[in-house]
Amino acid sequence: MAASRGGAAARSRHDADEIDAAMQIAIGASETVRGSTSPNPPVGAVILDRDGRIAGVGATQPPGGPHAEIVALEAAGRAARGGTAVVTLEPCDHQGRTGPCSRALVDAGIAEVHFAAADPNPRAAGGAGTLAEAGVFVSRGVRERDVETGPLQAWLHRERTGRPLVRWKYAASLDGRSAAADGTSQWITGPAARAVVHAQRATLDAIVVGTGTVIADDPWLTARTPEGDLAAHQPVRIVVGLRDIPEGARVLDDAAPTVLVRTHDPAEIAAALADYTDVLVEGGPRLAGAFLAAGLVDRIEAYIAPIVLGDGPAAAVSAGVTTLAHAHRFRFESAESAGPDVLLHYVRDEATDSATPAGGRDQQTSEGT
Amino acid sequence: MAASRGGAAARSRHDADEIDAAMQIAIGASETVRGSTSPNPPVGAVILDRDGRIAGVGATQPPGGPHAEIVALEAAGRAARGGTAVVTLEPCDHQGRTGPCSRALVDAGIAEVHFAAADPNPRAAGGAGTLAEAGVFVSRGVRERDVETGPLQAWLHRERTGRPLVRWKYAASLDGRSAAADGTSQWITGPAARAVVHAQRATLDAIVVGTGTVIADDPWLTARTPEGDLAAHQPVRIVVGLRDIPEGARVLDDAAPTVLVRTHDPAEIAAALADYTDVLVEGGPRLAGAFLAAGLVDRIEAYIAPIVLGDGPAAAVSAGVTTLAHAHRFRFESAESAGPDVLLHYVRDEATDSATPAGGRDQQTSEGT
Repeated sequence: MAASRGGAAARSRHDADEIDAAMQIAIGASETVRGSTSPNPPVGAVILDRDGRIAGVGATQPPGGPHAEIVALEAAGRAARGGTAVVTLEPCDHQGRTGPCSRALVDAGIAEVHFAAADPNPRAAGGAGTLAEAGVFVSRGVRERDVETGPLQAWLHRERTGRPLVRWKYAASLDGRSAAADGTSQWITGPAARAVVHAQRATLDAIVVGTGTVIADDPWLTARTPEGDLAAHQPVRIVVGLRDIPEGARVLDDAAPTVLVRTHDPAEIAAALADYTDVLVEGGPRLAGAFLAAGLVDRIEAYIAPIVLGDGPAAAVSAGVTTLAHAHRFRFESAESAGPDVLLHYVRDEATDSATPAGGRDQQTSEGT
Repeated sequence: MAASRGGAAARSRHDADEIDAAMQIAIGASETVRGSTSPNPPVGAVILDRDGRIAGVGATQPPGGPHAEIVALEAAGRAARGGTAVVTLEPCDHQGRTGPCSRALVDAGIAEVHFAAADPNPRAAGGAGTLAEAGVFVSRGVRERDVETGPLQAWLHRERTGRPLVRWKYAASLDGRSAAADGTSQWITGPAARAVVHAQRATLDAIVVGTGTVIADDPWLTARTPEGDLAAHQPVRIVVGLRDIPEGARVLDDAAPTVLVRTHDPAEIAAALADYTDVLVEGGPRLAGAFLAAGLVDRIEAYIAPIVLGDGPAAAVSAGVTTLAHAHRFRFESAESAGPDVLLHYVRDEATDSATPAGGRDQQTSEGT
């Protein structure tokens, strides 16, 4: 999808493969800063010089720091003049704590800007128009879906709904049990699935667990590298519930901030999460049920182990459903293998879910999607 | 994989695509007779005339009737002379209720035989050798995997292990529940999944349910076409348990034979299934648990609905597992979509399962596959 206005060139000087390759690098750069940029989006940018060589790569710095485009422009220096910017998100057009990126790109002499996703934020949007009016060739849509379902998924959700993206992650047997009858649950899934979990933790703003999980399992809830070291970015640990956490509990160590939310009230829990963008609910079953009942779960990441237990606690309990017609409905998105386990991705089915924050059960209709 | 002996031609007169296309037709023919041929294998055969045109298609008839090759030869008539047979299984070499197919193919003047799977049965095997010695070009292996994981899966399992292939099929929510708190369970999965279930039923020898399921749900357990008519082949309905079935229960109607197995003893249940080849255990949770505990489940077909319930019965209970290390282990094989639902296929993990009929829990080792 190409848009060009004003005095801009009608066509890009690059072929599609060149821009696609640069966008993949920009996406990779953005992945490295996920979780550390909120409330700003984790963006990646690549500057190509006028001969199409990579002159600079950048990613959004923590709040108050420069945006991805500025980092990449600084890395490119003079090579940016007459060059091309490839960015995962439409460059911003507003004066926040940093100046508008659209202006910086024009000032640096950038001739072309290719971005993946449009900015839905009315305060920041308009970057594409400003660039085109300044004579820059602008195109949108390269790897848009990869970006929208990847590094910018949570931020775009937040921009569109005003709420954090809440993922419920659980690991269970084929019969839906998160532990055996004697309480053993480590490791219900294998090393490959655990590696995926740790890699994801390093990209989150916050992880939520119940006090029951802290008391029963004493988890660290930190993100670790495959070598076992703490990852550079750690999500905030949010512990929800009324029970007292033992002194010396691992979630109270210095590895990451921890917030205690001493309530069972869904509205108070939602309020405690309001400032985050990408939030993962890890358990236990009762907390998962409460989040589901309150309509707070946007996505489900289900790690299914290839085992059957036949006894033991379910992955979710007390979700406010008494009859099948009132089930919490999601939409299957994709499946992937993680060693012997299967990871299933689901997204809230807005058309049929009976418990969205926007409406009560009474508003449920029989309309399908 | 081509094998040729005796005075046979060293090469096939056909190109690979031609044989592959004929094998697909043979597989399709074999699918139409699944469930109706036990204890014989459901085989499909295609006869090509000497110019490579399809001269006859056949599939195994019910026990006592002709094998697939004979049906196809009869359909081809004189056109078989100098022609080619494409068969899903190695032609049999033994005199059973019908004569050996290897001899019939030679007598019909067949010049080439291409088969998918070798016959593991020592009584019947040797057909390939007999054919080659008679100067027939013989090749094995075309679509071997499709056949071995498809129409001949259950029969090959039985030949190799001496036991029926027992599939446990269940439909559950993401949290592993087969019904909501009030017992509602129809339809936890959607129409696409139900169509798959009915198509499968028409291929089975037997369906097993517990008396509890019959009393609670009063199912028919018949195979129906998408139009709602009874399918041509119906599996035997096997009802296991000690509770009395109400007079007028649907499983007692005339649509299919029904066998009542009044026991909870796994050995007696296994004995009751011994004469079948392809058996599906449909439920309920307690029966599934008993089959799992007895090590009788060879494959799992899990229909996962995109819903969370939070309350309600689990898909399997009382499977004899108290701690995670003793979980019943399976190996993930494949996933497919069925409308909004996901169908996951698992096969028993012989290397790690702790409850196979061949060995007790004490023989469990830590060896992986």
